[in-house]
Amino acid sequence: MTQTQACFADLATLGDNHYVGVIEDPVSGRILASGSVLIERKFIRGGCKVGHIEDVVVDKAARRIHLGQRIVDHLVHYAKTIGCYKVILDCKPDLRGFYKKCGFVESNVQMALYF
Amino acid sequence: MTQTQACFADLATLGDNHYVGVIEDPVSGRILASGSVLIERKFIRGGCKVGHIEDVVVDKAARRIHLGQRIVDHLVHYAKTIGCYKVILDCKPDLRGFYKKCGFVESNVQMALYF
Repeated sequence: MTQTQACFADLATLGDNHYVGVIEDPVSGRILASGSVLIERKFIRGGCKVGHIEDVVVDKAARRIHLGQRIVDHLVHYAKTIGCYKVILDCKPDLRGFYKKCGFVESNVQMALYF
Repeated sequence: MTQTQACFADLATLGDNHYVGVIEDPVSGRILASGSVLIERKFIRGGCKVGHIEDVVVDKAARRIHLGQRIVDHLVHYAKTIGCYKVILDCKPDLRGFYKKCGFVESNVQMALYF
């Protein structure tokens, strides 16, 4: 089992709160785009759920055919279906325009602490 | 069972990837500060972990005694202990200074989509 396979096996044990979506080329079987959404269960607001979108990537060879927007739409739909009241994500400032096209609005600032 | 108790019972079933920390007044038993950290398991970077700090609050009557920084330090320590390589959070721009004091650096922008 490769490290990636072992990682996916581990992720599968976490249930539906760690969801990974992919777009696959039906001919080659190659993954063209992927992204994930982490479902947070809050203890405030009556135990509501929030989706955190992470790691949206599109294969360089498959750009300009809107696969990024399709994978984001898919993750948003998953989060909505599972009962989230909102979806959030952090991105570099130059991706604001892309996410606005996907229906997002700029909200806050992200802070990070690296170990 | 109250709605809050039912919510905490549900959270307990999610294991150590939904962690809630509190600071309690040892005399009154009143909760003075709380915050949570959600542990994300990525499938990239060798299946590494990232801590997402959420919902840091301090009781109005207990401010100016650095409980906010103490609860954040506690959540950061938890995330580090559990093996995260970084901790991230989203905050309003006027809280940048507080989180910088806690060791964070400004990183990206947060985008949100409400259902």
